[in-house]
Amino acid sequence: MEGAGAYNRRSGVQAASLRVPLSMLEHAAATVPLPGQPAPVVIADYGASSGHNSLAPMKAAVSSLRQRCGADRAISVVHTDLPGNDFAVLFQTLADDPESYMKGDEAVFASAVGRSFYGQILPSCSVTLGWSSWAVQWLSHAPAQIPDHVQVAYSNDPAARAAFARLAKEDWHAFLLSRGKELCPGGRLVIVTMACSDDGDFGHRGVLEAMQSGLRQLTSEGLLRPAEVRQMAIPTFGRTQREFVEPFTAQERFGGLSLERIEMFEGDDRIWSQFERDGDASLFGASWAAFSRASVFPTLALGLADGRNDPRAPVFMDRLEAVMAAQLARKPGPTFIPLAGLVLVKA
Amino acid sequence: MEGAGAYNRRSGVQAASLRVPLSMLEHAAATVPLPGQPAPVVIADYGASSGHNSLAPMKAAVSSLRQRCGADRAISVVHTDLPGNDFAVLFQTLADDPESYMKGDEAVFASAVGRSFYGQILPSCSVTLGWSSWAVQWLSHAPAQIPDHVQVAYSNDPAARAAFARLAKEDWHAFLLSRGKELCPGGRLVIVTMACSDDGDFGHRGVLEAMQSGLRQLTSEGLLRPAEVRQMAIPTFGRTQREFVEPFTAQERFGGLSLERIEMFEGDDRIWSQFERDGDASLFGASWAAFSRASVFPTLALGLADGRNDPRAPVFMDRLEAVMAAQLARKPGPTFIPLAGLVLVKA
Repeated sequence: MEGAGAYNRRSGVQAASLRVPLSMLEHAAATVPLPGQPAPVVIADYGASSGHNSLAPMKAAVSSLRQRCGADRAISVVHTDLPGNDFAVLFQTLADDPESYMKGDEAVFASAVGRSFYGQILPSCSVTLGWSSWAVQWLSHAPAQIPDHVQVAYSNDPAARAAFARLAKEDWHAFLLSRGKELCPGGRLVIVTMACSDDGDFGHRGVLEAMQSGLRQLTSEGLLRPAEVRQMAIPTFGRTQREFVEPFTAQERFGGLSLERIEMFEGDDRIWSQFERDGDASLFGASWAAFSRASVFPTLALGLADGRNDPRAPVFMDRLEAVMAAQLARKPGPTFIPLAGLVLVKA
Repeated sequence: MEGAGAYNRRSGVQAASLRVPLSMLEHAAATVPLPGQPAPVVIADYGASSGHNSLAPMKAAVSSLRQRCGADRAISVVHTDLPGNDFAVLFQTLADDPESYMKGDEAVFASAVGRSFYGQILPSCSVTLGWSSWAVQWLSHAPAQIPDHVQVAYSNDPAARAAFARLAKEDWHAFLLSRGKELCPGGRLVIVTMACSDDGDFGHRGVLEAMQSGLRQLTSEGLLRPAEVRQMAIPTFGRTQREFVEPFTAQERFGGLSLERIEMFEGDDRIWSQFERDGDASLFGASWAAFSRASVFPTLALGLADGRNDPRAPVFMDRLEAVMAAQLARKPGPTFIPLAGLVLVKA
């Protein structure tokens, strides 16, 4: 994740696609069994990043729970992410953002956990309501080089495709097993994540093409070495509905969880909608390039000879953003954003 | 706090003075009432900074609790500090340091809270064991300029002295009232903090004199403006035993807490001990200067015209450290480190 607040400012793409999962979360908050007094009601936000995209869903969940448990009951909101996440920005967002769920509620308590959600990171049977938005598409690591692309969905390399698919299955199992331990009996977990359509379309084609051709251009300019570009891989994976459902096919429950609901849907393409309104091709290109920079350039920079501390890292990001913005501005078009929303219940 | 890990590497002065409070913590962990199953046993570490100095006390507390509650009971350790604290370093320290209390214990769960401990930041009646080391000497803010020194204990300005003493009392009350809400009935809070001897000696005289004269030198060199140096104030306050005890004099309990034990003691002066062994005056000066840089230079830098982002901030810190190191190396001597250890009990 690039430095303080960059992601917060540029993550409108995610925020625009939360209607379906937000209604799932509100329904879960309205119906999930609450723990006995005086235990706090615990909400876990798995993969919170810098917190900006967590404000609306956490506010909705807290507000719904407040109607059931009154103003004085302690509600604990735990935001998790990787250890290197910018938790200072997260806590500052929670304190200062006018849309923070902490404003005006003296009995809501935020905390953070800096550990990978592919293991158990909260006490067993402690979580009433779980939420995870745009997070479980990130695999635990890149399991292989992708010789011909940064995103495995657009690779023609069978070994890379197989390695990513295998790890995506293992990670999905590990995620479910860990949440199965953490959820209270009756607890609900709502997930929204990048996905893949039934016919294998990961979407984001134009943006990823612009990224790939930007990397080629930076190589021909001499800024990048070919071996560095081969190292660059975005370890995200769009699962199909079949892949999400797989753990629940042999038996109804997996790790104590059952799948109450799954919905495959298409995310709003706010950047295209904006272009349809204003016809501003430069803004169109700049918006997607800025989103790409905030969400994946720091991962790409790991492929540089000296990683993120490589002295070329800042100019690499600046140039790639500029090249992508210019290319995308040349032929604006809609972006297909396949998503999945899931509701899981602990038995 | 200066960037990633600086404080972790240079905070040996604190770690050397924990014998008295560690024995208080171990006794509290061995005797404090535990919450009923299945609630996790919650330990709060108030003012954790980057976590390095929390490892030994948290390991001692967890290990003592494990003997009472078995290997499987969830123990939750919550590290608190200000929102801008470097929580990434804290989580990385917890994950990677061989001395981490998390090593080999699958049922201990760490989290962080990025809010000032001068308010309630954890659910009511949720904390079994509290710990706060070298933290409550930091006031909530600097209540006044100190015209003649960076540390109010060495100021001759009556208005500044009165303003700091008044805020120190208010902050101490606020700290106790907040912890009184958070502790479980019977819960214990162990505090170690910088203090002031009965005859008003805050200690650290030679180090603070070197800092003050270093600031004068940097001003005469033209690096600092006199108005900037006047803005520089370290908002720490050494309370006397009478000031610690004050809330408990009119009545036994304050905010539901009673003071079980207070001990004023002198911190180990490891840097002087090292000099007595090796006679290395340069190392002596460099050690105190590095400690000063890690613990208070970022606070001093707030006095620069553009604060910590002032382009002179790095050179200001480098120069002040060098000047202090040179001055302290000219006449090595022991440093008086007055501390207080307290045990508070929730009724």
